[in-house]
Amino acid sequence: MTTRTLFHHSLLPTARKVRLALHEKRLEFTEVTADPFAADDELLALNPAGDLPVLVDENGQIVCGTQAICEYLEEVYPQTNLLGRNPKDRAEARRLAAWFDEKFNREVTQHLAGEKLTRRLFENGAPDSRALRAGRENIHTHLQYIAWLTERRSWLASDDISYADLSAAAHLSLIDYSGDVPWADHPLTKEWYVRIKSRFSFRCLLQDTVPGIAPAAIYADLDF
Amino acid sequence: MTTRTLFHHSLLPTARKVRLALHEKRLEFTEVTADPFAADDELLALNPAGDLPVLVDENGQIVCGTQAICEYLEEVYPQTNLLGRNPKDRAEARRLAAWFDEKFNREVTQHLAGEKLTRRLFENGAPDSRALRAGRENIHTHLQYIAWLTERRSWLASDDISYADLSAAAHLSLIDYSGDVPWADHPLTKEWYVRIKSRFSFRCLLQDTVPGIAPAAIYADLDF
Repeated sequence: MTTRTLFHHSLLPTARKVRLALHEKRLEFTEVTADPFAADDELLALNPAGDLPVLVDENGQIVCGTQAICEYLEEVYPQTNLLGRNPKDRAEARRLAAWFDEKFNREVTQHLAGEKLTRRLFENGAPDSRALRAGRENIHTHLQYIAWLTERRSWLASDDISYADLSAAAHLSLIDYSGDVPWADHPLTKEWYVRIKSRFSFRCLLQDTVPGIAPAAIYADLDF
Repeated sequence: MTTRTLFHHSLLPTARKVRLALHEKRLEFTEVTADPFAADDELLALNPAGDLPVLVDENGQIVCGTQAICEYLEEVYPQTNLLGRNPKDRAEARRLAAWFDEKFNREVTQHLAGEKLTRRLFENGAPDSRALRAGRENIHTHLQYIAWLTERRSWLASDDISYADLSAAAHLSLIDYSGDVPWADHPLTKEWYVRIKSRFSFRCLLQDTVPGIAPAAIYADLDF
C-alpha cells in the first residue's frame, strides 16, 4: 500500500474537479503540486504525456487525465455515485462535464482565469484586454444554461449531484477567485453554486491561494 | 424504435473513432453528415453545444460527444469489449485515447489534416507551411511511441484491441488520406496499422472521400 497521491495544480479546473470528486467520495489523499507547463522527471515517469492531473492510488495504480481518473473512481469506489444511476443519466453527466471542460474552458476559463491567473503566475504577463472582454461576454450564456438546467432538475445532469456539477463548479470557482462571475445577474445559478460551495468537498478549493494574487473578497465566503 | 443514427463529419477523428467502434460492435447505424462549424437546427436540438459526433440510439437515447458515446456503447453493448477487462486496462485505454484525441490532435492532426483537408474544404484556403512542417516533425515521436507500446502488448493499451487503438487509428487514417504518415521510417507502427486497417470495421473509413481532394494512392490499399 502506498499513500494515495494526486499530482495537480490549483489553477487547473480539470484537477479541481478531481479533488472535489475525491472529497465527495471521502477518499484521503496527499496533494503534490506540479508545474503544468514543465513536467519534471517524477511526473513524466507517471505520465509520459506530462499532463496533470495524475492519481496514484493506494494499490499503486497510476491513472492519468481527468476523464480517466473520474471513470476510474466510479469503477473502484462506487459508494458515492457521481456519474448517474443509468446510461441516460451517465450520458448526460458526461455530456455536461465535457461542456464545461471543453466549451466553457475555451470560451470563458481561458479568457478570464487564463489571462488573470495563469498568465500572471507563469509568464508574469499582463492580461489581454480583448480576451477579458470576450470571457466576460461569453460567461452569461453559460450561467443562463446552468439556471435553465436547475429549473428542470435538482442538479445539472439529474436529481443527483454528478461530475457535471463538479466540472461546472471547478471552472466557476477559478473565475470566482478573481471575482469575475456576475452572480447578481444570475440568481438561480447562484443558488446552485451556493449549494455546491457549501459542501464539505468544496473546502479544499476555498483554501487555495495563487502565489502573489489575493482572491476576491467573496471567493471563500459562503454567504456571498 | 427509431433508426440508430450517427451525426458526424468524416474529417473529425473523434467521429471516425465512433464509427470504428459501432462497426467493431456490429451495430447497424445510419450516417448523417453534418457541418462541424455551423450546426443547423436539427443538430442543435440534439446537442445544444452544436458539436459532433452525436449518436441517437434505437431507443431514442441521445448521446453527445465522443467520450460519452464510447462509454455509453460499452455500458449498453458490452458484448465486444473496447475498454478493457479491469480498471487498470480501462485506465490505460482511456489515457491513450486522450493522448491521441488531445495531444496527437494538437501536435499533429491539426497541423496536417487541419491544414490540408479541413482548411481547404471549409475555407478554401492554402495550408500554412509552418504548420505542415511542425506536424511532419511532431508525428515521429508519436509513431515511435506506438511502436514502443506494441513491443510490449498485442494492442496499444493491453493484449486486446481498445479505444486506444481506435483513437490512434482514427487520427492516423486522416493523416494517411493525404499521404503524410512516414510509414517507411516506422515499420513496427506500420505492422500495427496494417492489422487495424485490415479489420472489417475499417472499411467505412477507407471509403471516405473529401469533396475535391483525392486520397493518396495508399489510403485504401491494405498492402501499402
